Amino acid sequence: MAKKKSGTKSASSTPYRDALHAAPGIDLAGIDTRGTPAFDGDKSAGKKALTALAEPVSDLQERLFAEATAGGHRRVLLVIQGMDTAGKGGVMRHVVGNVDPQGVEITAFKAPTAEELEHPFLWRIRNALPDAGMIGVFDRSHYEDVLIARVHDLVPKSQWSRRYTTINTFEEEVADAGTTIIKVLLHISFGEQKERLAERLDRPDKHWKFSPADIDERAHWDEYQQAHQAAIDRCSTEVAPWYVVPADRKWYARLAVMNLLNEHLEPMELQWPEADFDVKEQRKRLLRS
Amino acid sequence: MAKKKSGTKSASSTPYRDALHAAPGIDLAGIDTRGTPAFDGDKSAGKKALTALAEPVSDLQERLFAEATAGGHRRVLLVIQGMDTAGKGGVMRHVVGNVDPQGVEITAFKAPTAEELEHPFLWRIRNALPDAGMIGVFDRSHYEDVLIARVHDLVPKSQWSRRYTTINTFEEEVADAGTTIIKVLLHISFGEQKERLAERLDRPDKHWKFSPADIDERAHWDEYQQAHQAAIDRCSTEVAPWYVVPADRKWYARLAVMNLLNEHLEPMELQWPEADFDVKEQRKRLLRS
Repeated sequence: MAKKKSGTKSASSTPYRDALHAAPGIDLAGIDTRGTPAFDGDKSAGKKALTALAEPVSDLQERLFAEATAGGHRRVLLVIQGMDTAGKGGVMRHVVGNVDPQGVEITAFKAPTAEELEHPFLWRIRNALPDAGMIGVFDRSHYEDVLIARVHDLVPKSQWSRRYTTINTFEEEVADAGTTIIKVLLHISFGEQKERLAERLDRPDKHWKFSPADIDERAHWDEYQQAHQAAIDRCSTEVAPWYVVPADRKWYARLAVMNLLNEHLEPMELQWPEADFDVKEQRKRLLRS
Repeated sequence: MAKKKSGTKSASSTPYRDALHAAPGIDLAGIDTRGTPAFDGDKSAGKKALTALAEPVSDLQERLFAEATAGGHRRVLLVIQGMDTAGKGGVMRHVVGNVDPQGVEITAFKAPTAEELEHPFLWRIRNALPDAGMIGVFDRSHYEDVLIARVHDLVPKSQWSRRYTTINTFEEEVADAGTTIIKVLLHISFGEQKERLAERLDRPDKHWKFSPADIDERAHWDEYQQAHQAAIDRCSTEVAPWYVVPADRKWYARLAVMNLLNEHLEPMELQWPEADFDVKEQRKRLLRS
């Protein structure tokens, strides 16, 4: 009944999960960044499909939230990674922005503060994990500690190389606590990034999003791709799989992430909590009040 | 130019601010909870007017956010108070949900935890104040400490009666730090609350929002109104004014809060930050990258 009401497909139909799942050993370089896996239509159809998902996904989010008010422990953690300009902000705005902001907690991880650096790398991540009933969204994450940290030798190799195992153990623990983990890599091309940075330079209302360091980072593009590949090879697990979303087309990337969210919420079979009071009795009391 | 682009009215035009402003001494009981001050149209026109504000308010929010990335200190704090079922959640979803979730921090204040009770009542409030560039939204607030605390004698009168002054000092300090404070009381009638509670009882998907204690609280309705009146009389100040929003019509309450947000953001004359780099030079570097 829930499924009929929300108008979504059956839980067994997970085309985006299947099409975008990145198992260890997948060749990242072989994935077309302009592709639109699991979707046949054009941009206009894609935008409509995204809008059409807003209501069913909102409905599922509210059920998740309601479940926690009745003692449920389940929650969702959506991790968004990607190179500069890959569209992380757009996903926050146009995907996450489709659900009730009361049920969502976005954390943007920047360069660690002095306080954060004094703690193990997962400390600030643990502090930002979603409460029961919430959809937590990480704009960058603990994966920066095996991406930028690896590319720029922020810590010795002996240290970052141990982190993959640490991350897997951590994510297992998070999953055991009732968290559905969805890890998304927004995958853009070197050329597409150039165009997007050029647009930021061309538009005065985008200058604030640009930093000269963004261009410095382009010199390390291949190393970042290797680091992404390693993150997938080492950390795409059953409880916390990676999904690679082709992101040269912004509309597709947003549609894909929305579908991934939907296809993870659906099989949870979220139900409205049963009343823990006698409805008839309360109706009588209300009438007299 | 900014104003033209965002399509909003001039900063001097603040009909909702003027119509809804609740100065000390205003008679709360005399305000029609079914009224639609500053708006002439019907529900359908009201919904359209709300949608039409989404883009200009989002634009202003993004400028506020951008300003902070360039060192700005300004921020907004929207405080939403109201009796159970007054529509606080709807404001979060349908007003706050219109702007980029990256720029918004919602905090819902429930009954204080054991840890919170060990601290002064403003401790948890201070911890939830918005960072520079953000729109902080309080779903309930420190005003609970002069509302429920007063009605139910959670602390002695000698204590809660001092809190009005404490709150004013606190809000002045918050305003001095660069915060535009907007305090909204969603004002519903006793009869409207009854209908909304009845709906929660009638709909299994709303049972989780209902608690038998909601009916107990109705017995204290008049005391709550007096406590609201006192909060306005004592704490509607120049830097942190109260606005009373008639809320028996949900569509109007949402439209009014959206307009209040707009009418407070507009006069801030938010500009995109100037580039702190040489745009031409960066373009050349990008081309070579």
